[in-house]
Amino acid sequence: MSRLVFSSAVAFALTSLLVVAQPAGLGHKIDAWVTINQRAIVTELVELLAIPNIAADRANIRKNATRLREMLARRGLTAEILETTGNPLVWAEMKAPGSTRTVLFYAHYDGQPVNPKDWRQPSPFTPTLRAGRMEDNAAELTDLATRKTFQADQRIYARSASDDKSPIVALLAAFDALESNGLRPSSNVRVILDGEEEAGSPSLVPAIAKYRDKLTADVMFILDGPLHPSGRPTIVFGARGSLTLQLTTYGPKFAVHSGHYGNWVPNPAMRLAQLLATMKDDNGRVLVKGFYDGLPALTAEEQAIVDGVPDDPNALQTLFGIAGPERPGLKLQEALQSPSFNVRGLSSAFIGGDARTIIPATATAEIDIRLVKETPAARLHELVLAHIRERGWHVVTADPDDATRATHSKIVNVVARGDGTNAFRTSPLLPISKQTVSSMQSVFGAPPVQIRTSGGTVPIAPFIEALGFPAISVPNVNFDNNQHGENENLRLGHFFRAITTMAALLTM
Amino acid sequence: MSRLVFSSAVAFALTSLLVVAQPAGLGHKIDAWVTINQRAIVTELVELLAIPNIAADRANIRKNATRLREMLARRGLTAEILETTGNPLVWAEMKAPGSTRTVLFYAHYDGQPVNPKDWRQPSPFTPTLRAGRMEDNAAELTDLATRKTFQADQRIYARSASDDKSPIVALLAAFDALESNGLRPSSNVRVILDGEEEAGSPSLVPAIAKYRDKLTADVMFILDGPLHPSGRPTIVFGARGSLTLQLTTYGPKFAVHSGHYGNWVPNPAMRLAQLLATMKDDNGRVLVKGFYDGLPALTAEEQAIVDGVPDDPNALQTLFGIAGPERPGLKLQEALQSPSFNVRGLSSAFIGGDARTIIPATATAEIDIRLVKETPAARLHELVLAHIRERGWHVVTADPDDATRATHSKIVNVVARGDGTNAFRTSPLLPISKQTVSSMQSVFGAPPVQIRTSGGTVPIAPFIEALGFPAISVPNVNFDNNQHGENENLRLGHFFRAITTMAALLTM
Repeated sequence: MSRLVFSSAVAFALTSLLVVAQPAGLGHKIDAWVTINQRAIVTELVELLAIPNIAADRANIRKNATRLREMLARRGLTAEILETTGNPLVWAEMKAPGSTRTVLFYAHYDGQPVNPKDWRQPSPFTPTLRAGRMEDNAAELTDLATRKTFQADQRIYARSASDDKSPIVALLAAFDALESNGLRPSSNVRVILDGEEEAGSPSLVPAIAKYRDKLTADVMFILDGPLHPSGRPTIVFGARGSLTLQLTTYGPKFAVHSGHYGNWVPNPAMRLAQLLATMKDDNGRVLVKGFYDGLPALTAEEQAIVDGVPDDPNALQTLFGIAGPERPGLKLQEALQSPSFNVRGLSSAFIGGDARTIIPATATAEIDIRLVKETPAARLHELVLAHIRERGWHVVTADPDDATRATHSKIVNVVARGDGTNAFRTSPLLPISKQTVSSMQSVFGAPPVQIRTSGGTVPIAPFIEALGFPAISVPNVNFDNNQHGENENLRLGHFFRAITTMAALLTM
Repeated sequence: MSRLVFSSAVAFALTSLLVVAQPAGLGHKIDAWVTINQRAIVTELVELLAIPNIAADRANIRKNATRLREMLARRGLTAEILETTGNPLVWAEMKAPGSTRTVLFYAHYDGQPVNPKDWRQPSPFTPTLRAGRMEDNAAELTDLATRKTFQADQRIYARSASDDKSPIVALLAAFDALESNGLRPSSNVRVILDGEEEAGSPSLVPAIAKYRDKLTADVMFILDGPLHPSGRPTIVFGARGSLTLQLTTYGPKFAVHSGHYGNWVPNPAMRLAQLLATMKDDNGRVLVKGFYDGLPALTAEEQAIVDGVPDDPNALQTLFGIAGPERPGLKLQEALQSPSFNVRGLSSAFIGGDARTIIPATATAEIDIRLVKETPAARLHELVLAHIRERGWHVVTADPDDATRATHSKIVNVVARGDGTNAFRTSPLLPISKQTVSSMQSVFGAPPVQIRTSGGTVPIAPFIEALGFPAISVPNVNFDNNQHGENENLRLGHFFRAITTMAALLTM
């Protein structure tokens, strides 16, 4: 394999660049190949999208796995189906002679459940092509199966078009593009394709014990999720975890007349409000003792990475119709470096036309706490419970019985939904992290957006933790892909560029 | 008419008794008459209950009015139907030669809407008889139409059995009972029967302008509502008013991902909780400035009346499953002397299985404020608005537009449901109040329960205010009558005793 030393001319000012070994002009070569082969690439994607892939649909999941194994084998990878306690994993490997580095690519081939009648097409598994965004009234193009060329703004509408089949197809196309240019991956490559990600990946961690030898690597690239809203190539070094709690407070056993008993019978809705209000100050700072303990001060380099994300707060504020962030002056990326405390739902008795003059029997708040690497779910759960108890509340984990009601004036039922999912973060300062950045920069001629911690939670976090080596997320698809919803879609310009991104990772 | 001076032997220690002119042994005479005439009394009630009486059912409302006019005329009262802008009022009068006092009896002949399928009988307008409480599995007695005698624990199930037709029938039976004993009312008597009380009595105040001459009196006795839960004869001197407010706070225009934006996009549910928490302290004291202004200290005599109510807080606490009142040590009757601030409903996004990890777009609290005479609705409304504004909130009365959203970080939409209903209270220290008490005590041989202010709100309050003379509520029916719900019922022991109560009022 021909390899040239390539020095980045436009050094990314925010990152100490390593010298990167990458084929000269790789980006242009891949682009050229994609332009010629776009029809075949789209065909492979469309055929894969046509196989339904809901995790619970075992027969079709198996069809997907078989198809993917064949697709991988066709590129010369050793490909296998790995049986698990749940849906099969698809695994593949290609050795790079002489390389001591192994990269593991992760993607998932299952998709979110669908409600076909909500879709503006006959089936979420019959891909359709539109000239642009459906929301912009872009027309459907009926020649998806036959047209020779595609435009960057055109979109394919289908379940898993973005989440998460197109990254798999892009990765395979990158193998083809390299080969047709006489190139090969510079690292040993492994691929693991999950068939249950949208169902929480329950079989993934257990599979490690059985298949550890097939899953070792120096780094895992997670091919999932959307690019930064700016649309620029993006690298994500971490994701917040999450812990969800349900808090229910108790008033009278049954709703009572607010006239006859108002001022006398305790009101669970007011007490819930009072409890919640102790948890956050007016500036959005969580008041639970120890909530932010252990968060490190960012180094200047890390701070520069965080500050370098091209967010547009004014555009977001306009989009959301808010006058400013929760804490005045707080930048979005700064906010995402900390754990959050969010009231995601509230309910007590009725509102609107159904409202009645009663003292409600109960009031419930649904809470989600986003975690960062330094604040694991179990610890924050304990801190919240301690906070509640310190304020005189009796904490239960089921509806209180009569004796409990008679003894305690402030009772709250705190139910955690499972153990939560911890955060993951790979330091952007690791050599492998910097190498990934510089490889992307080489190919695209401009630095990627670097996200130290993305705000959302990925179910793969326990898998990353169990594997024990660095993981870096490399998203590929358009931000406005209607992920998880109806009319999921993939912008083809993003898809084609993803092939170049994959080539960068394969050759870095 | 024979009238004897009757001195109470068992002077009611808590009230300065006046000397009451009342026929000797009146209670026993009425009892005896009722025992003999119970079949006819029940028949008259059952026939009246058989005429459907939902306020919106104009044809049947008219049949009720016609029937009632006839029933009143049969007792020798001058009876008329008074047309209004809504349902007709039934009015009647009987002069007491030589008396300079006029008492006006108010009751209503319409009933709450019904959902017949929720009733355990073919129709809410086909009265049925049970041996006791349905909830205690008392059997239905199929000989309601033919049986000669009734037991005190037996109950008639029908819409308006308690609320509010039986007091009308009891009043008319009292005329009969007096007449058969050679007695006549000691005051000029007027009767006004409302056909829209359950629809908020919209035509009542406007009718005053048209019929003021027919509605003047020295006191109005309101025959409505249940006795004190102790079951003892009860006199109620006032009722709290009510003001309902809906508070809606705003986050992003549409729910956004709590991972991507948690800590950054303001959360309307948390902000609502924080706002509500500023309104009441942990001991149930409302923190809105001026909320309790103007409340008088009770005189020793008033305090004795309030303290004399035979509430059973332990029984209530056990029934409701609460460890104690909102403010430790607060007595129920004390609580009812003050305005209340009650959260009757809360909602933001979803809870339970529908909960999603979002920052909700809005959060809503439904508030009801119970008023006392010294705290009119308009003033407390202003105080609450001032409280909210002082805490930095921008108050709107409709969903905010983009410009408002861009300018104000804390926006709350405060919607009042109408102008509220003010409280009413007649001083229990007035001579007419004391006379009513002593008359009841004479007849029953024991003092009635005296409620200075009942907790609930009566739509008749504006009518009382507009009439401008004292009003005293004299309830008659069992506390557990399923008022406003399905299976409304009347305990016959209460019904028969109501006739004695009416005789006491007619002859005091």
